[in-house]
Amino acid sequence: MDVGDIIRVETDKGIFEGILLPSTDENIITIKMKNGYNVGILKENVKNIEIISKGEKPKYELPPLNIEKNEKFKTISILSTGGTVASKVDYKTGAVHPSFTADDLIRAVPELLDIANIKGRAVMNILSENMKPEYWKKIAEEIKKEIEEGADGIVIAHGTDTMAYTASALSFMVKADVPIILVGAQRSSDRPSSDAALNLISAVLAAREPIKGVYVVMHGESGDTFCYLHKGVKVRKCHSSRRDAFKSINSIPVAKINPFTKEVIYLQDVEKSNGRKVEIDTNLEEKVALIKVYPGMDGEIIRFYVDKGYKGIVLEGTGLGHAPEYIFEDIKYAIDNGVVVVMTTQTINGRVNMNVYSNGRELQKLGVIGCGDMLPEVAYVKLMYLLGNYEPEEVKKLINKNLVGEIEYRSRFDAY
Amino acid sequence: MDVGDIIRVETDKGIFEGILLPSTDENIITIKMKNGYNVGILKENVKNIEIISKGEKPKYELPPLNIEKNEKFKTISILSTGGTVASKVDYKTGAVHPSFTADDLIRAVPELLDIANIKGRAVMNILSENMKPEYWKKIAEEIKKEIEEGADGIVIAHGTDTMAYTASALSFMVKADVPIILVGAQRSSDRPSSDAALNLISAVLAAREPIKGVYVVMHGESGDTFCYLHKGVKVRKCHSSRRDAFKSINSIPVAKINPFTKEVIYLQDVEKSNGRKVEIDTNLEEKVALIKVYPGMDGEIIRFYVDKGYKGIVLEGTGLGHAPEYIFEDIKYAIDNGVVVVMTTQTINGRVNMNVYSNGRELQKLGVIGCGDMLPEVAYVKLMYLLGNYEPEEVKKLINKNLVGEIEYRSRFDAY
Repeated sequence: MDVGDIIRVETDKGIFEGILLPSTDENIITIKMKNGYNVGILKENVKNIEIISKGEKPKYELPPLNIEKNEKFKTISILSTGGTVASKVDYKTGAVHPSFTADDLIRAVPELLDIANIKGRAVMNILSENMKPEYWKKIAEEIKKEIEEGADGIVIAHGTDTMAYTASALSFMVKADVPIILVGAQRSSDRPSSDAALNLISAVLAAREPIKGVYVVMHGESGDTFCYLHKGVKVRKCHSSRRDAFKSINSIPVAKINPFTKEVIYLQDVEKSNGRKVEIDTNLEEKVALIKVYPGMDGEIIRFYVDKGYKGIVLEGTGLGHAPEYIFEDIKYAIDNGVVVVMTTQTINGRVNMNVYSNGRELQKLGVIGCGDMLPEVAYVKLMYLLGNYEPEEVKKLINKNLVGEIEYRSRFDAY
Repeated sequence: MDVGDIIRVETDKGIFEGILLPSTDENIITIKMKNGYNVGILKENVKNIEIISKGEKPKYELPPLNIEKNEKFKTISILSTGGTVASKVDYKTGAVHPSFTADDLIRAVPELLDIANIKGRAVMNILSENMKPEYWKKIAEEIKKEIEEGADGIVIAHGTDTMAYTASALSFMVKADVPIILVGAQRSSDRPSSDAALNLISAVLAAREPIKGVYVVMHGESGDTFCYLHKGVKVRKCHSSRRDAFKSINSIPVAKINPFTKEVIYLQDVEKSNGRKVEIDTNLEEKVALIKVYPGMDGEIIRFYVDKGYKGIVLEGTGLGHAPEYIFEDIKYAIDNGVVVVMTTQTINGRVNMNVYSNGRELQKLGVIGCGDMLPEVAYVKLMYLLGNYEPEEVKKLINKNLVGEIEYRSRFDAY
């Protein structure tokens, strides 16, 4: 039985039919079913297995593309970190390949040739659920390299799970005069419903715009109609599976991108690009925790972090920025030990206002700092960035000041 | 200077003018400003203070109301736990009184007399941010008492911060044949924009419907037009300050309530009431933790809980229910020690599906159980309830089965 064969597997739970995929676990048979999903079957549960038809073998390696540079076009570098958007499926074998070059991209989405000169390479290959701060630094460094080597815009292909965290991290770490666009896909490119191609085309369209800053491009609605360009510090994955999972929070998208007409329609003002300078600052204090607050929570968790030498704690409080009074002593312990404690809200939408109720006023008296309308995830990344670069007293002053668009001082009526 | 006087306070930060309120903190002067907000001013920051006009003193206590029972009406018990909706403002002094009786309610919202016989009492008086599991038990007991004493429906006045957690807890703890409606307000009743009266009228309208189960009633949109009746296990506070902060998640509201025409229009099927039986089950295992997953998180936090004797952990994972592979060993440690570990998603909307990507499959192999489309907060409460009543092996079977509407097996297209 070879990878690529169509097989039929009988188990207690039912019969599975599909293309045999390469498996990284010897105890598991992985097959790609007709509906596009992969299913992993424990070998010990297999009652019977048969080959329905042998798969075709690829007869030769694809030759390299030889595409001339179009001098009228901007050069866009697509850096892949892994994830669904960067996967390339071999239709012969059904396997999803992690390999990722400009050629792969252009073969998958030839429309890219009509809008830009495309460079592309993989800088890592991870599922974004495994992302960590040291990878953010690596991505920042690769962005710098690409811009210095001539890229007019950067597209980062990224898994969607933690794409918003990475977008925030890059927003603080990279000061570039060109646009940096993160893009992902909710359905892999071997599925008829894949959003990978339209998202990628829209991301490249965004990357050639005369703007700067870090953004996320994803489907604007569930149909294949348009994409939104979201500010990297104002966006969040708000659905586990829909193609329009990403939403601007406490803000509206920056622009609407039509991948068919190639139009980019701005919905709010945006900083214009003015050259190709790039600086990065990859200092991050990794001893920062994000703690969700809830009824019955154990305040000792705060002491655990303090005693482990943590320097910052982001609370994801309730309502306008509250926490149960039975953890006040623990919060005080953190602050007495020099830990910077800041407050965000688990309502996601809306802003913290710790002046309205006594609970919030008490927390402020303890030294907890409200973070306005900043998302909890963004506050987490920002606190790592600030503590990596400034003394605590300075951090306390900067945490609730807008640095790169992460805080809007006035609430928008059209943002909920 | 007496409470109720209109005073003018000069500080470094500006001049504040308003009605002097009673203060619980001797270092702080609290005044109610014209815009309805209370402001607390540290006495040490006061540069000058003057009385603009003396407040009127109430000349007598209000006499008790003497309202005849209307035999055609149902009897609705309003139990107050505290929070904005239950606050009563003395217009003479500007102070917000925690006192709460049926008479208070009827004086504040006389329209209630036209729709039901109203009973009312305070069962506690706390800000909901200070809610904890033992209070949930107390509320369950008071509900039982009221139903046994003849209530046809129950309204619980509750602060909005943790109202959804309490609604979940009551959904699992109380099996009653009458409706139990939680209601709150986002603006206190002394502000012209208060939503307290309309929400309360709508809650009483819901409480007299021939249905059973636990629900939340709040504004349906920001204007004073209608309220929604949400399933208690499918609702979440999604904005820190808007009046339409509560949204049904992965579901739609159960009904639309028009407090002006008194119409209740059902949007989905609902269990009919069939008597007035009530049973409660207040066993909760409090050693359950809710942990949000994020890039760079410290897996040792899981060991901390395990070593403290925790019995259950709810992970608020990324995407379809993922966690970084660098905490897998810690998760394994928890499961090896008999802790029940379950997975939800921080996208809030959508469902967990741990069969799609290798990360999810690995987590399942470790023994982590996906919770379908159940909200993280609901999974937390449900795990406490299950561990309080069943052996771990049984808990693992029940956690992702629908018990009281908390899990919908099929996704709705109209729910995002």
